Amino acid sequence: MLVTDLVNVCYLSGFTGSNAALLVFADERNPVLATDGRYRTQAGQQAPDLDLAIDRACGRYLAGQAAAGGVRRLGFESHVVTVDGFDALSEAAGATELVRASGTVEALREVKDPGEVALLRRACEAADAALTDLVAHGGLRPGRTERDVTRELESLMFDHGADGVSFETIVAAGANSAIPHHRPTDAELAPGDFVKIDFGALVGGYHSDMTRTFVLERAADWQRELYQLVAAAQRAGREALRPGACLRDVDGAARRVIDDAGYGEHFSHGLGHGVGLQIHEAPGISAAAAGTLRAGSVVTVEPGVYLPGRGGVRIEDTLVVADETSGHAPELLTQFPKELTIV
Amino acid sequence: MLVTDLVNVCYLSGFTGSNAALLVFADERNPVLATDGRYRTQAGQQAPDLDLAIDRACGRYLAGQAAAGGVRRLGFESHVVTVDGFDALSEAAGATELVRASGTVEALREVKDPGEVALLRRACEAADAALTDLVAHGGLRPGRTERDVTRELESLMFDHGADGVSFETIVAAGANSAIPHHRPTDAELAPGDFVKIDFGALVGGYHSDMTRTFVLERAADWQRELYQLVAAAQRAGREALRPGACLRDVDGAARRVIDDAGYGEHFSHGLGHGVGLQIHEAPGISAAAAGTLRAGSVVTVEPGVYLPGRGGVRIEDTLVVADETSGHAPELLTQFPKELTIV
Repeated sequence: MLVTDLVNVCYLSGFTGSNAALLVFADERNPVLATDGRYRTQAGQQAPDLDLAIDRACGRYLAGQAAAGGVRRLGFESHVVTVDGFDALSEAAGATELVRASGTVEALREVKDPGEVALLRRACEAADAALTDLVAHGGLRPGRTERDVTRELESLMFDHGADGVSFETIVAAGANSAIPHHRPTDAELAPGDFVKIDFGALVGGYHSDMTRTFVLERAADWQRELYQLVAAAQRAGREALRPGACLRDVDGAARRVIDDAGYGEHFSHGLGHGVGLQIHEAPGISAAAAGTLRAGSVVTVEPGVYLPGRGGVRIEDTLVVADETSGHAPELLTQFPKELTIV
Repeated sequence: MLVTDLVNVCYLSGFTGSNAALLVFADERNPVLATDGRYRTQAGQQAPDLDLAIDRACGRYLAGQAAAGGVRRLGFESHVVTVDGFDALSEAAGATELVRASGTVEALREVKDPGEVALLRRACEAADAALTDLVAHGGLRPGRTERDVTRELESLMFDHGADGVSFETIVAAGANSAIPHHRPTDAELAPGDFVKIDFGALVGGYHSDMTRTFVLERAADWQRELYQLVAAAQRAGREALRPGACLRDVDGAARRVIDDAGYGEHFSHGLGHGVGLQIHEAPGISAAAAGTLRAGSVVTVEPGVYLPGRGGVRIEDTLVVADETSGHAPELLTQFPKELTIV
């Protein structure tokens, strides 16, 4: 099989360069990692046991090598290879048949091993500690801008051992909190605002993901009600995280709570997603999802209700789905409290 | 034409969400922007003049809309759409013929307008100012780690107005400087080290890109010679930046200097690349590049020589290719000095 998705190459080989492909054989032949000359040294360090090939057109080169090596059927990632890229592979592969292998490595990545869970736990701990510090130091106060808060929070994650941020931090105050994926601006936090913070730390290549929503100084009744509704939906979603559960039923468990309260149209996204080497990976947990939840997968549960022009609440945790035989509840990796906090 | 590349969608529409597609008509019909429910508010704010469609499967939905609207031929981005994605588009497009339109928007993006150049200039200024501060404050000194330097430099970019970092900052000390794309570690800077720093600031969606290489405390003769060689090659590359020049000749102008000194095998990457909404975009400047340089394009010139186990030097600027009629030299956007600096 020819692996050309860079995250999948990294998962299988340990190599983190920005141009790579991997050829894996069904027989005992050693896998071949291809990259370009910039990464010769790094590839040798990160993947010392693999054969190394240097060529800028990594995928095309390895397809040619497979053909030259007598491979008759070569799997390729049809969900990653572009229409133009497929032409190039076909030409290089000659008589070797190209066979679709969509999502094969992603399915392996869905279930995390203990080493991966340990990194995800550390990433979530860094995020927890950063948010705890931010709140304790009075980092959320009227007059600060969304950008100020973003910057301090990101800096605190580094203080607590993050290698980087998981994704563009969302800090959304007041009416901006009604924008699910808001990019921080120079808008100032004001008393009575919802402040929605969605952020994560990166540790050893693994991403954490957590959202908390605060209220500044005083909470109106509609804010308390909205918060409690989302908290109830989030609890229902967490409680539905059992191995073997249909993904759409997990989504439904949380969505029903919001639907029943009459806010269904304002919960405009899926309930959650897998998280690991990517911030969004398999499985997706939504009303449209097929398949079931697997033990050892690490997923988010993040319902939200967004009222345009007024404000929104999202509460998100990252959890490890427990082993079926253990009977245990999922392990909560993001432990920052979820009670409504008025800061 | 159906545009599904997110950067191209942003370039044409102004919308920055993470799930989108754009349908542009050859006649006077208004373009349609599709995204999912998370981005309804944001899309209305960022692209108020476009028709808005809400559907998670943006590309597929718009292909169906094109077919329903009587479009006979629909361009699609064959360098972006995957093999699986093409199947979905084909099904949705029905009798509408899908026509390859590879790199069409990227070619438009190659030449920057004055507003884009202004943002690139600000991004480069933020990076210049951050590196100036870092050096002035003694940020490069024995005992600090590559990570320490990375973090301070990135923080200084924010102080100078950056919205974010352009890409993963490279700080590579000692033998690590021989790894072209090294990821910062806890390795400590030591006297006599090369310290190679490749970094950039993000301003208004536009990326800066600059590399400088320093020597710590004392420079050996081989380091001075290597530095002067790379500096000469970089100067030759900059002087070859004329509109209409063959891209491979620009690469060749710098590469020849290094080849002639006998170090050709240690300059293991292309000379440069376009920079704008992406850190790497058209045109690529390498020995394998086809095409010519266009006035108004913004490109990097970044030769490097890397001696495994010993150390490496890269010197990189970002420049605007001048208008043919002006006869002017390219505008240098990254103005931090390039003389060998012993810190």
